[in-house]
Amino acid sequence: MNVLVINCGSSSLKYQLINSDTEAVLAKGLCERIGIDGRLVYKKAGGEKEITEAPMPTHKEAIQMVLDALTNEKTGAIKSLKEVDAIGHRVVHGGEKFASSAVITDEMIKAVEECNDLAPLHNPANLIGIRVCSELMPGVPQVGVFDTAFHQTMPPKAYLYGLPLDYYKNYKIRRYGFHGTSHSFVSKRAVEFLGLDKENSKVIVCHLGNGSSVSAVVNGKCIDTSMGMTPLEGLIMGTRSGSIDPAIMEFIAKKENLDIAGVMDVLNKKSGLYGMSGLSSDMRDLEDAAAEGNVDAKNAREALGYGIAKYVGGYVAAMNGVDAIVFTAGIGENDNLVREDVCSYLGYLGISIDKEINKKRGEEIVISTPDSKVKVAVIPTNEELAICRETVALV
Amino acid sequence: MNVLVINCGSSSLKYQLINSDTEAVLAKGLCERIGIDGRLVYKKAGGEKEITEAPMPTHKEAIQMVLDALTNEKTGAIKSLKEVDAIGHRVVHGGEKFASSAVITDEMIKAVEECNDLAPLHNPANLIGIRVCSELMPGVPQVGVFDTAFHQTMPPKAYLYGLPLDYYKNYKIRRYGFHGTSHSFVSKRAVEFLGLDKENSKVIVCHLGNGSSVSAVVNGKCIDTSMGMTPLEGLIMGTRSGSIDPAIMEFIAKKENLDIAGVMDVLNKKSGLYGMSGLSSDMRDLEDAAAEGNVDAKNAREALGYGIAKYVGGYVAAMNGVDAIVFTAGIGENDNLVREDVCSYLGYLGISIDKEINKKRGEEIVISTPDSKVKVAVIPTNEELAICRETVALV
Repeated sequence: MNVLVINCGSSSLKYQLINSDTEAVLAKGLCERIGIDGRLVYKKAGGEKEITEAPMPTHKEAIQMVLDALTNEKTGAIKSLKEVDAIGHRVVHGGEKFASSAVITDEMIKAVEECNDLAPLHNPANLIGIRVCSELMPGVPQVGVFDTAFHQTMPPKAYLYGLPLDYYKNYKIRRYGFHGTSHSFVSKRAVEFLGLDKENSKVIVCHLGNGSSVSAVVNGKCIDTSMGMTPLEGLIMGTRSGSIDPAIMEFIAKKENLDIAGVMDVLNKKSGLYGMSGLSSDMRDLEDAAAEGNVDAKNAREALGYGIAKYVGGYVAAMNGVDAIVFTAGIGENDNLVREDVCSYLGYLGISIDKEINKKRGEEIVISTPDSKVKVAVIPTNEELAICRETVALV
Repeated sequence: MNVLVINCGSSSLKYQLINSDTEAVLAKGLCERIGIDGRLVYKKAGGEKEITEAPMPTHKEAIQMVLDALTNEKTGAIKSLKEVDAIGHRVVHGGEKFASSAVITDEMIKAVEECNDLAPLHNPANLIGIRVCSELMPGVPQVGVFDTAFHQTMPPKAYLYGLPLDYYKNYKIRRYGFHGTSHSFVSKRAVEFLGLDKENSKVIVCHLGNGSSVSAVVNGKCIDTSMGMTPLEGLIMGTRSGSIDPAIMEFIAKKENLDIAGVMDVLNKKSGLYGMSGLSSDMRDLEDAAAEGNVDAKNAREALGYGIAKYVGGYVAAMNGVDAIVFTAGIGENDNLVREDVCSYLGYLGISIDKEINKKRGEEIVISTPDSKVKVAVIPTNEELAICRETVALV
């Protein structure tokens, strides 16, 4: 079965066409600057990357261009759209309505719309992608795969904030968590790869990228995660602050003469590693700067590693033990020094890592030593493949 | 030496007269409703509690009434003010200027004033108390003891937020931590009481009261704590939210049509255990309600215990191990079920507690079993005695 995986943003979309039997990527790429000018990137497996500048006034033209590229006589991955058997869409926020992926129907779309409030930038964009695909490929089954779904197994003590209960009842203010497709994919793979007993396993997944989150997974079910009602909470990220004293917002607003939206803009776009270092949101740049003696870059890197270690320690308590700790996503897969830093706090758990093996990047590897009491591994995430699998399971 | 300990709030003050040689409390009490009408509570050691309603237009009249009561011919604890050898004041915020207690001088007052910005409700009230005492008891040495001082040993990775660095440089936005006098007193006492080697000790103090905070203390020095720039951050408290996703503030502001000050009011006064339960900020009320089947009260209690356990777990990672975990303050000293709940998460550390011994309330006790790998204890805090000791050490 061929599955077209679509991740639709407000002015961009990423896509992959995957053969679900072989799990091979037949083609992939993205559309950028939708509604501005328009740019299509397309790459067939084994082929060259093609870049086409072309007007994309709306997502409809963008997706049409993707479909045209996929079926192009010369460089297309398939001969006709009949070879697309299903479409899987990433949907950011499923609120409390979706604890798993769902086949897209009119009712399902309505339920997603009711969650728009919680993700006003993302969900409407995701829905545009769904609607355009329905129009351009009528009859092809579609599935929505939610960033929040995997975390819906959290108990109230983990998802309730210390806020008036009416805010939860009336406005659905609670912890949801994000990156769920990745946490689910990586925690499942960890159980297989490390030979754990799924029904008796405690796994911590550190998804560390431009956005970062940690999750605690007991017997395959998420019991806690560091992102909250939105993806702003938790760890220090590329440009996002992560958790701060809530009172700081009022303080910043007064000092900088900003309204609450202005403060939110700072917390989302000008903070995190970028804000702390004044240099870059990229851990590699900070590593280089720290090596050259830049104290702010060093502090930013140390604060991230320390923050990850504290979340890991907190989740070991939440689970009353841990069998495996897994690193994934851009930083998690590639920044061996951050992994080493995090593990340096965890000797009390009987954790030791092989620093040489840990130097490998982007590979599925065990970095703990054979005598380590907790297994520590790197497992590359693959959200598109996860969406493909979820889609196949439902159509 | 007799030390008058004063904790001055905006419309109230608490006082104790302590003999520093015997550490006996000679008299204690409080003034309430200063600037409104006025009410003095006075109790001499071994005597009856006396309540006097009398006008207190300002803190000057309030402190004068305290001094009159202390030297009252019939019920006074001392014969004349000459028997007050020193005065110790609680000061909430010492910013980065005070890493320890300080003798009060004009320069010192100026430095405290420069921290007012960070504690606009508390520091000015503390300074009023200092000024009035200087006026009413000229020549008596005074010492300021800061809530923040003990935490000044935190490293940058613990005190820096993921915010633009200029906010730290220009506005001093960072983690300060509070309850420092209690964390210092209790962690020191833990080392003595539990027979630890101070120079090789890792202690976690859970100060759980109407305001709550956790601290991690290595070799007598604080390396991290859960409160932040203000006392709002961290654990769920009586009426304070503790940490939340910062994005929730904008969401609440929109939904409830509040400005940022209105949201802050909700987070400080209508949240926490009170907000979650809709019943009470008092853990005893919630315990009773939970026992009668109230799910919201049960959830609030569980969320607090779970939150404490996660902080403890996080700080065990921060210290790469732990020798002792200590509970103190109203809830910590008296709520055995919360202590049991927290410890139920910590079996992986080799912790086991004696549930019968743990039922004791308000006593200095070891609640871990003899074979527990980490000692767990209850140590009553005594901030007034700590302020007395700090004062004696400096005058």
